Amino acid sequence: MSSSTKMSLPNARPYGFTFPPATTALIIIDMQRDFVDPNGFGSIQCGNPEIFSAVRNIVPTLQKVLEVARSIGLRVIHTREGHRPDLSDLPPSKKVRQVNAPHGHHTMGIGDQGPMGRLLVRGEWGHDIIDELRQLPGEPVIDKPGKGSYWGTDLHRILLARGITHILFSGVTTECCVTTTLRECNDRGFECCILSDCTGGFDQQMVTTSMDIICGQDGLFGYVGNSIDFLSQAAKSQALTPPSTPPATEDTLQSIPQLQKGYKSGLLDPEFVVSSVFERIERYKNVDSAVWISIESKETVLKSTKALSDKYAGKPLPSLYGVPFALKDNIDVEGAVTTATCETFAYVANTTALAVQLLLDAGAIYIGKLNMDQLATGLSGCRSPYGTPHSVHSKDHISGGSSSGSAVAVAAGLVSFTLGTDTAGSGRVPAALNGIVGFKPTKGTISARGTVPACKSLDTLSVMAPTLAEAREVWYVIDSHDALDPFAKSPLSLSLWKSDFRGPREGGFTFAIPPPSALSTCSKEYQTLFDSSVQRLRSCGGRLVEIDYTPFALASDLLYNASLVQERIASIGHEFLLANLESLHPTTKSLFLAALESDLKPWQVFQDQAFQTQYTMQAQRTFDILKGGIDALLVPSTPCHPTIQEMESDPLDLNAKMGTFTHAGNVVDLCGVSVNAAWTEAGLPFGVTFLGGSGYDGRILDIATVFEQAVKSTAKS
Amino acid sequence: MSSSTKMSLPNARPYGFTFPPATTALIIIDMQRDFVDPNGFGSIQCGNPEIFSAVRNIVPTLQKVLEVARSIGLRVIHTREGHRPDLSDLPPSKKVRQVNAPHGHHTMGIGDQGPMGRLLVRGEWGHDIIDELRQLPGEPVIDKPGKGSYWGTDLHRILLARGITHILFSGVTTECCVTTTLRECNDRGFECCILSDCTGGFDQQMVTTSMDIICGQDGLFGYVGNSIDFLSQAAKSQALTPPSTPPATEDTLQSIPQLQKGYKSGLLDPEFVVSSVFERIERYKNVDSAVWISIESKETVLKSTKALSDKYAGKPLPSLYGVPFALKDNIDVEGAVTTATCETFAYVANTTALAVQLLLDAGAIYIGKLNMDQLATGLSGCRSPYGTPHSVHSKDHISGGSSSGSAVAVAAGLVSFTLGTDTAGSGRVPAALNGIVGFKPTKGTISARGTVPACKSLDTLSVMAPTLAEAREVWYVIDSHDALDPFAKSPLSLSLWKSDFRGPREGGFTFAIPPPSALSTCSKEYQTLFDSSVQRLRSCGGRLVEIDYTPFALASDLLYNASLVQERIASIGHEFLLANLESLHPTTKSLFLAALESDLKPWQVFQDQAFQTQYTMQAQRTFDILKGGIDALLVPSTPCHPTIQEMESDPLDLNAKMGTFTHAGNVVDLCGVSVNAAWTEAGLPFGVTFLGGSGYDGRILDIATVFEQAVKSTAKS
Repeated sequence: MSSSTKMSLPNARPYGFTFPPATTALIIIDMQRDFVDPNGFGSIQCGNPEIFSAVRNIVPTLQKVLEVARSIGLRVIHTREGHRPDLSDLPPSKKVRQVNAPHGHHTMGIGDQGPMGRLLVRGEWGHDIIDELRQLPGEPVIDKPGKGSYWGTDLHRILLARGITHILFSGVTTECCVTTTLRECNDRGFECCILSDCTGGFDQQMVTTSMDIICGQDGLFGYVGNSIDFLSQAAKSQALTPPSTPPATEDTLQSIPQLQKGYKSGLLDPEFVVSSVFERIERYKNVDSAVWISIESKETVLKSTKALSDKYAGKPLPSLYGVPFALKDNIDVEGAVTTATCETFAYVANTTALAVQLLLDAGAIYIGKLNMDQLATGLSGCRSPYGTPHSVHSKDHISGGSSSGSAVAVAAGLVSFTLGTDTAGSGRVPAALNGIVGFKPTKGTISARGTVPACKSLDTLSVMAPTLAEAREVWYVIDSHDALDPFAKSPLSLSLWKSDFRGPREGGFTFAIPPPSALSTCSKEYQTLFDSSVQRLRSCGGRLVEIDYTPFALASDLLYNASLVQERIASIGHEFLLANLESLHPTTKSLFLAALESDLKPWQVFQDQAFQTQYTMQAQRTFDILKGGIDALLVPSTPCHPTIQEMESDPLDLNAKMGTFTHAGNVVDLCGVSVNAAWTEAGLPFGVTFLGGSGYDGRILDIATVFEQAVKSTAKS
Repeated sequence: MSSSTKMSLPNARPYGFTFPPATTALIIIDMQRDFVDPNGFGSIQCGNPEIFSAVRNIVPTLQKVLEVARSIGLRVIHTREGHRPDLSDLPPSKKVRQVNAPHGHHTMGIGDQGPMGRLLVRGEWGHDIIDELRQLPGEPVIDKPGKGSYWGTDLHRILLARGITHILFSGVTTECCVTTTLRECNDRGFECCILSDCTGGFDQQMVTTSMDIICGQDGLFGYVGNSIDFLSQAAKSQALTPPSTPPATEDTLQSIPQLQKGYKSGLLDPEFVVSSVFERIERYKNVDSAVWISIESKETVLKSTKALSDKYAGKPLPSLYGVPFALKDNIDVEGAVTTATCETFAYVANTTALAVQLLLDAGAIYIGKLNMDQLATGLSGCRSPYGTPHSVHSKDHISGGSSSGSAVAVAAGLVSFTLGTDTAGSGRVPAALNGIVGFKPTKGTISARGTVPACKSLDTLSVMAPTLAEAREVWYVIDSHDALDPFAKSPLSLSLWKSDFRGPREGGFTFAIPPPSALSTCSKEYQTLFDSSVQRLRSCGGRLVEIDYTPFALASDLLYNASLVQERIASIGHEFLLANLESLHPTTKSLFLAALESDLKPWQVFQDQAFQTQYTMQAQRTFDILKGGIDALLVPSTPCHPTIQEMESDPLDLNAKMGTFTHAGNVVDLCGVSVNAAWTEAGLPFGVTFLGGSGYDGRILDIATVFEQAVKSTAKS
């Protein structure tokens, strides 16, 4: 279903509810055995077996709604009320108040042993969602200690990450958890509608009035609709949707949504996809032999693919089932060699990086390791002893780095996506120079354990994929807080903002750009293409506003022209560098030699960090959306696209120049995504990057998406 | 009213509601002109003038309840619904949904110009609270963009900071903002009760059912009581409260609550208090001449005190009205010299530190600047060219440092409270050695602008006061996010936890202590006293649990025995130190010389910081209350109490030893409060420190308070 399609529930109160399925979620509240089956907490709470058993009547209707919601591409989110087994998240009042009622019927309290396990305790049978409405792999399940769904959960972040603007509500009980959550969602800007026949409670008066309050006063909190409207409208829209999956061929790799559709329908087989991946990799070696560092044996991969399809035969498929991917060779896979393209540094990894494990758990298929600038030092792609990959679009032009192979492998259609890393732009620069999407999530949101550090305090994993939608789908899988990663940010500390139900295109958004003095670093052609991109973004609903660019410019200088680069020595290891300096690639060697011989004093690090802290504060304020900050900073991803020859004859300064617009993103803790914006006269890709404040990943992806759509629709017309 | 007193509303539903006034808040929801006066947003929302005007009937009752709540010491918190003038915090759905209703009565929307100003816009006449219920100075007003009171506000932090366990609800409208906020408060563990005759709404059915839902099912969300119970119970408890304020004398400074009571009743006059302060300061110079660096002229202070009393004549008094305070001499007051006890460093400040300005705005009276270890380097109090203050309790023993004068001035009763700073223990060590409270709030929560930095990334202002209640009252005033302080933490990123309505003593809490190997650093007597303190804390409801102390021990070593101390050079200024090394105090000089001559390499800073990050992650996990973490780490504030002579003969190692249990607090970002726990045979104070995770300030204060009460009740018995 196209992203601009809309559906309506014409009979909703106070008036028809219109929603775009592409950004709408169906939230199913607490349909746990504990609340709808006998002998659970709900039956105690209700106190009347007859009334209680009637609540389960909503299940068949809700089941039908769930099925249709999935089929038309709504995001489905489940909640479960419950507590940790040690009850450390159970407020004493919640347990004691009801149990202590002198004439009450709460004979048992939360945590007590019941026939279905301890009441409302996670991991118990009674705590699970009933079979009829069970979550599919990839559907978020919010475990909440409250009646509402925001306290102690990451629901808000999950909704914003997915660009959700509208929510349909269902589940139990209406008067308690359902309308409490709806009220919370409404405060945060989501346009909400309860499906009245998909929710129920323990007192009809309370159920009815609860819904009257939601839609009273011309829609105080939202809308009240019903499943009849929903199902009939969905049927109409499905009838209109043409079949869109092109047939699978061995020549091209289908997009992730196409693969998902193909697998689900049974028309496509992961072993066929894997075989064709290996064929294309083999063929592309004739075009560029410097893309891969190591490739798994085809037999091994086919065997594990077979195991995967056996495992999921007849079952719901996880979100990246059968999707082939590869890794920059500074990311660990248990048993495989990690080289960071430095032979003396190489080691056999004894664990798999958490992010990679999450991909494997989601059914993705690991193919191999990709070339990179040695030790992730460089933005050129010309610093590997394993050869220099070139841009997919020109044999003479650089691929960009340091995640060179990761970008080329995606752009050449060899795998569906890759992971790279980004310490100074390494995930965005090569994406731009190969015409694909390179997404650097907020630092500390993706586990960094199991990757070779470049600068521990600046590193992030990055995602490369052909389109934003695909990069985003991969991100949902790896975006998982790792409590054991010292550099991880607490999910609850990440930025949240209000949703705009109109979406960026209709609702509008603000963006800023670097001043002319900064843009003058760009080639003339890039300047022109950037100007056009600014115009395009304005035509997509963007309002260009002035900001103070100084902190971004100064932060950029801080990375290479001050002491921050010294972190590389600490991260790679001083002893290793001293012992192996001679073995390094000549350019890497000269860089590390200069760093080792630097006469900087340790106190200068603190001086520079104080500046870094100041610029970070200033930059983050720029993006404080709730206080009138901008939504995005638009920059050219790179100022130019050098040839390999140009880069080789000026390996340091020209490399540094490539990071003109990326460095600041790492120093002042921004998220960023590079998207292809146009093509040069010579047929090379031109990329722009959307930068946002720490934690605003979902927001910049939303905005980049309307831009990407505009670029594509121009390309088509 | 004593902290253990309880009150009841016997006729509440589902059964009697009992609450301790000391930790109960009255929340008044949205009693703004815009909601209860004609021509505001409320009248549009309601759509029926007759129904609308009836809502105002609750005002006289609520006014009476408010007055009584204040008189019995409940915390009063107001909320206002509204938006920034640029409407950047207004979700589009909130405005558009009601206005767009085809047959609706929303002729105007939020932000539109009405007769009382722009509807629901902050700063407009209509947005203010009605005169009858207007907030008093010091009563928090929560400006909220939602119907609930949590999204986009710091209500949760404000409640937790104040140790609130119970909440009485009132205001408008019942069906909307009142019960939405109550539901949110209930999820977070607060025990909630609506006063049914102090709330109203636009539809009687909705109002009634909304309250039925709150107390239905044996108290699903809380209780529904009424003002008749509240007023009659309050009258009874007031009749029982004996007058407790001792008469004012010139010999002793009354506590902050006594001063507040005296000023409010008109029995006490700030000019009298100021005069007696100056007399006591003069007298104490005969005991210890090294406490003050500079004192304002008595005439100047009396003049500004007169101006203050004129300003507030006949008006409600701000929370620190007429409370005398002084500052460590590394904190700026506009026009006064800041020396940091280093003559070559001294400068006339051209601004007042934000924290100090907040104190002045709250009516506190600034008296002067206090001695300190030079440049805040030291924990001994023996590193000032302006003399060595001694402990209030012994002429021979050190006062501790670096905030030496700040501790002595409070312990000697010269001023009500002081501000110090704490980079490695400077706020906690001297408090312990003088028998008072020293509170180091979470780093980045109090503005650091206008203070001389020691290590910018580790510094915090600290509060010293005779009791926890007084330190806390001061903290409420200065605890204000400063968006222009680069080291400020976003308030929304700070830790939140669930409230336990039973309080720490009845509800219990967990704590840990250092292992015997670490405690063996302490003198024998201190070891014994610490053991007794552990027993005492257990008797207060504390459950002693095992933790891994390694990260705390390793973090402590990192501060002085690694590269982190190099930050002092960057913070004080390399050029200044080079030019003025000879002018420094001999001990300070030797320290800075060693640091300047260090052969550490810049990369080693990053190496140490990577360890710091790792220990921080581990330490913070230890305190993650919602995941079963501990509430507090109890440590001796210092391992011993040296004489001045002992310190002078071993000025470096013995000084470092004093920080054995404080250093980690700064390195791994903890909050901490030192409280007097006992007295040595020689009559010297022994202090213990409660350490908590970043942002858990309110929690450690709650726990320290039950300990302080136990210490005091023992002393009395």
